[in-house]
Amino acid sequence: MKGLWLENNELQLRTDIPIPEPPPGEALVRVLRAGICNTDLELKKGYYPYTGILGHEFVGVVEQGPEHLLNRRVVGEINAVCGKCRFCLSGQPTHCENRTVLGIVNRHGAFAEYLCLPVVNLHPVPDHVPTEVATFTEPLAAALEIQQQVSLGKNDRVLVVGDGKLGQLVAQTLALTGCELLVVGRHQDKLANLEARGIKTGLAEAVTDRAYDISVECTGNPEGFAIARRALRARGTLVLKSTYADNLNIDVSSLVVDEITLIGSRCGPFPAALELLATGKVDVQPLIHAHYPLTEGLVAFEHAQQRGVLKVLLEIS
Amino acid sequence: MKGLWLENNELQLRTDIPIPEPPPGEALVRVLRAGICNTDLELKKGYYPYTGILGHEFVGVVEQGPEHLLNRRVVGEINAVCGKCRFCLSGQPTHCENRTVLGIVNRHGAFAEYLCLPVVNLHPVPDHVPTEVATFTEPLAAALEIQQQVSLGKNDRVLVVGDGKLGQLVAQTLALTGCELLVVGRHQDKLANLEARGIKTGLAEAVTDRAYDISVECTGNPEGFAIARRALRARGTLVLKSTYADNLNIDVSSLVVDEITLIGSRCGPFPAALELLATGKVDVQPLIHAHYPLTEGLVAFEHAQQRGVLKVLLEIS
Repeated sequence: MKGLWLENNELQLRTDIPIPEPPPGEALVRVLRAGICNTDLELKKGYYPYTGILGHEFVGVVEQGPEHLLNRRVVGEINAVCGKCRFCLSGQPTHCENRTVLGIVNRHGAFAEYLCLPVVNLHPVPDHVPTEVATFTEPLAAALEIQQQVSLGKNDRVLVVGDGKLGQLVAQTLALTGCELLVVGRHQDKLANLEARGIKTGLAEAVTDRAYDISVECTGNPEGFAIARRALRARGTLVLKSTYADNLNIDVSSLVVDEITLIGSRCGPFPAALELLATGKVDVQPLIHAHYPLTEGLVAFEHAQQRGVLKVLLEIS
Repeated sequence: MKGLWLENNELQLRTDIPIPEPPPGEALVRVLRAGICNTDLELKKGYYPYTGILGHEFVGVVEQGPEHLLNRRVVGEINAVCGKCRFCLSGQPTHCENRTVLGIVNRHGAFAEYLCLPVVNLHPVPDHVPTEVATFTEPLAAALEIQQQVSLGKNDRVLVVGDGKLGQLVAQTLALTGCELLVVGRHQDKLANLEARGIKTGLAEAVTDRAYDISVECTGNPEGFAIARRALRARGTLVLKSTYADNLNIDVSSLVVDEITLIGSRCGPFPAALELLATGKVDVQPLIHAHYPLTEGLVAFEHAQQRGVLKVLLEIS
């Protein structure tokens, strides 16, 4: 089969990859559509050593698997877990100590004609949800993880730093909580997406120092972190929601003086994300900037890396 | 009066300082004993620009103030607050936006014959608590702040990194929660203090990676931070409890992947600290390594800066 293969920081379109055979408990999924994420771009740059097929945001059709899923469109949670370690047994499977992660850690990903995932990872896509919309389930679930970690209410002043793919989803999900929200970014057209949904936006200069209860860093760069940090009141919470290519140089003493909480945030709940897509409470259509066939995957990656580009989708079958 | 004056990173013993006159709402306190803290050592090195009398850990006698405190021994909370800002009004006075801080921010400190503090900051010392013991109220309260911020129970595996002044107090207070505790440090004699109280100790090599629910960084150096970080399980909490001379270089992506919480921790509750000293549940006597008269304050600072030295006290009157 065809697939986008990463090896030694080089991405190539291969046509000689064997179609995988699902081990017991796993399903064979024919991939329909897949999204390119910043983590894919960082993996390509060498953020983490990975060899194999990239990709972890997808919609596919089950070709081998249990009857109730056969021939159905599905999305899939990316962590394939052991079910036996202390994290699995304590209801925190995304932190399974023996996990493989689709297209990220020891498991071939979604930028190929077929993939395998454990049956328990798969969630059917409601019929009326378009395939390209459902490819956002994984990043939308990740955005929702924030609300699993931090209590948020109408009285909270919340700042989202970054108007990129992740910032857009984070902003839309946070807006649903009714909190007092500001999103800052660098791209007028992207901020306009959010303004159109009634979300207040601005440039970094619009951020009042020490005014926010919670800030969410969605840029993955030191400038974004600095904005998110200085925006916080004492005892505020800074949510780290991005992939960082490099270490950050952090004034730790100021975190002590202001008793700031920093919290890392990764994968979130798929069912809640699917629900938001199904009910239209989150609108991902304006985030789709381009479609490419899998055979033009390398061009798609070039496109996705360009400044200001939001989601680039691969049409696979 | 005499006092230890810091100016342009130079500490000097001055004898020409006027005795302060307490403004309305404040008391005049004759200082009996004061303790040298790592923050004092860092201020001397230029961690934060400060000019004036250093010192914030003290016991004194009220010479001018309300009748119920006159001639009584007192300890004092170090943040002098406005009572009107959003933090004061929300029960978080230690984060008052207009605060001065004894011997740290815009308020002369305790390494002098007299100091002034708001009456509401003062707490009488129970008669049977020795003066030198009560000088530990402020750092002990800071140690107790951890328990205000992080829920701790018998099933929690907790690591304290650092066997210095602060690590000793943090360890003793955490041990009282019944949690499963390990303290690591570099000094066999200091660890022996804790072993004598039934607290498990070891060298850094004794720390199992990814095994602890909570780690408390009490060293103020990058090596200590690295130990505290690698000790944490996924979704663990790292409490920052020290003064850091420099920024730290932090692998933020790993915080995201493991969904780690970092939390800065500063001043804590004085009444609870006094109670622990009064009931003898915390023993500070082994932490006292030297006494000096105020007139030998510069020598006392030299001593306090030496590796392996715990608390150095100044005997003032």
